[in-house]
Amino acid sequence: MKQVTLLFIAIMLAMGNVVLAQTAKAKEDFKPSSTNQIGKEFPQVNSEGCVRAQISAPDAKMVQLDIGGVKYNMVKDANGVWTGESAPQDEGFHYYQLNIDGASVPDPGSLYYYGASRWGSGIEIPAHDQDFYALKNVPHGQVREHIYYSETNKSLRRCFVYTPPGYDSNLKKRYPVLYLQHGGGENETGWSAQGKAGLIMDNLIASGKANPFIIVMDNGSWTMTGQRRTEGASWPPKSWADGFMNTLIKDIIPTIDANYRTLADQKHRAMAGLSMGGMQTRVITLANPNVFSYVGMFSGGSISVEDVEKAPGFKEKVKLVFISYGSRELENQRQGFGGDPKENNEKLKNLGMNTHFYVSPQTAHEWQSWRRSLYQFAQLLFNN
Amino acid sequence: MKQVTLLFIAIMLAMGNVVLAQTAKAKEDFKPSSTNQIGKEFPQVNSEGCVRAQISAPDAKMVQLDIGGVKYNMVKDANGVWTGESAPQDEGFHYYQLNIDGASVPDPGSLYYYGASRWGSGIEIPAHDQDFYALKNVPHGQVREHIYYSETNKSLRRCFVYTPPGYDSNLKKRYPVLYLQHGGGENETGWSAQGKAGLIMDNLIASGKANPFIIVMDNGSWTMTGQRRTEGASWPPKSWADGFMNTLIKDIIPTIDANYRTLADQKHRAMAGLSMGGMQTRVITLANPNVFSYVGMFSGGSISVEDVEKAPGFKEKVKLVFISYGSRELENQRQGFGGDPKENNEKLKNLGMNTHFYVSPQTAHEWQSWRRSLYQFAQLLFNN
Repeated sequence: MKQVTLLFIAIMLAMGNVVLAQTAKAKEDFKPSSTNQIGKEFPQVNSEGCVRAQISAPDAKMVQLDIGGVKYNMVKDANGVWTGESAPQDEGFHYYQLNIDGASVPDPGSLYYYGASRWGSGIEIPAHDQDFYALKNVPHGQVREHIYYSETNKSLRRCFVYTPPGYDSNLKKRYPVLYLQHGGGENETGWSAQGKAGLIMDNLIASGKANPFIIVMDNGSWTMTGQRRTEGASWPPKSWADGFMNTLIKDIIPTIDANYRTLADQKHRAMAGLSMGGMQTRVITLANPNVFSYVGMFSGGSISVEDVEKAPGFKEKVKLVFISYGSRELENQRQGFGGDPKENNEKLKNLGMNTHFYVSPQTAHEWQSWRRSLYQFAQLLFNN
Repeated sequence: MKQVTLLFIAIMLAMGNVVLAQTAKAKEDFKPSSTNQIGKEFPQVNSEGCVRAQISAPDAKMVQLDIGGVKYNMVKDANGVWTGESAPQDEGFHYYQLNIDGASVPDPGSLYYYGASRWGSGIEIPAHDQDFYALKNVPHGQVREHIYYSETNKSLRRCFVYTPPGYDSNLKKRYPVLYLQHGGGENETGWSAQGKAGLIMDNLIASGKANPFIIVMDNGSWTMTGQRRTEGASWPPKSWADGFMNTLIKDIIPTIDANYRTLADQKHRAMAGLSMGGMQTRVITLANPNVFSYVGMFSGGSISVEDVEKAPGFKEKVKLVFISYGSRELENQRQGFGGDPKENNEKLKNLGMNTHFYVSPQTAHEWQSWRRSLYQFAQLLFNN
């Protein structure tokens, strides 16, 4: 997860906790971010994508803005208020935090999101293509918090379920389902909150670009009671016991099919995920070609011809293998395990499979890549 | 809102920012709180209800735990980790924060809740009666995020809608509706998150103690785009324009009746709220006895005979006036405006109205009072 960022942090740490000061003067057109708490003036973003944070800490010696693996020194004014700016950030959503005399804490001005294994600050850098996930006056689906008992985990669990516009009025209509997984250090809230999956779908459906379907977003990392999952991402799977594959196949899918008006067959079932969720998608769909028709892996590796050859029925039954990456991941040679993802995908195409390769322009291992990936992937689902 | 706490803070400030140190040694049976982020060891709570916070801040001069309007000094160890305890807290849920060299920030160990006009830390002190809102293996309803366009506000808004267990399988059944409002400085997430409204209802319904109904939790303070509401809590209402009354009557109720299988008449509609939400309930139900049958005001004033006399139809049409307070609010003479609430309620009973007065034992103007109030109120709804 976030291996590019982690690598960058590792280099920074190796260099001795390097702090970058702002070299050039930031353009003075800062505005409060769309991810601010209501009524809060900071953090702000300017037209260059620089982030300006501010916090009152009259007795502090040093306050830093920590974003994208880099710590930027902030400066105190006469009233004890600290202000500081980052270098330009990529378009889209980023996790960040403040550092006050050595304490890493959320920024009291921002909304909070689950990532990097914690609830913490997030900030939105306006993107040139943000219209596709904007909140608009179109028919909206619902995102439902669904609590269920998992026999596999012997515990209560929670997922979020997106039902498309019209679900509650067309009571005879049944819908296909996409099982959509978050990345490592994230949880079942990610796709709906920072991923904006619901708004992406509402807009796609309103413009006639995607068929309406249900999306199920569950937790691939943790049980609800706090045990860490034991399943690896290896293929063939080493352990079926207590892993997310078991939970998904034995508990989640039957729960969804029992409680929602689904089209409960392989033809109408997709699985996708980002990063770790992509790796889980790879393992689970290769092992279950009778269960899923559509496969999406966003910044989470790829499927090779060898994988397919070891997975009876996959080649014949799976209707789409969709692989995507942020362009900066490919620039940085982050190809995922198991070979070059584009090359792997082309080989599957040569094998006769329907494949799609998407590159998100000028984004890294971050949510803007995955929002765009969902936007592309959703348009290819359940068309035939 | 939180007037007792605010009064206490005001006294503290007048006394010169008094900091209480722990006088007695806390009992050493601290455990991680149920409201901690997954995997986090701190904050902790002991059997006396003391809160122990901990944070790494190696370069800080002073770190404090700020809870219940009191700041407790924390102590640094050789590794730069600060630890400190509060005095015993009342059972139930409390907002709190940390203070690091003058900066007020959320505790990175806790989950975050919206209160005091900010997203910040909350902590659960185990209560002797916590079973009524515990997560259990019973049939669960859903809490749905519902986005809609409000003509009154000329903006998109969000509410959360609790649908009871069975809502999606009994497709011919229609349900009564409770409109349930948060307090000042809180928002539409409060009743579901810290209020545990969904779990309270699931448990009540499972044990046959309450009829299943829909609960709608909207935002009575802010429009979704961030304008503050202008409506006062005066009766008769001074302004109908752009207030929550207009939004509720003209936009929210029609939206809910159009999108859910409601029993869309006065007999099957209730309104309740806590603190500011109670005051809104008073104003809105007095003005609309043709719309609501059941009225609940939790720590939010009461309804007098004079109120009823000025509200044609209220006496005849309203089936229940439920008033509640935390015992500490009454001890502290927090009677709300418009006279003693218990006395007011008794006078309504003498007038021939069905009234109920509930006092939550040993709780203040806080969520444990309101969870218990909902638990009591829900059992009295839609019985006749």
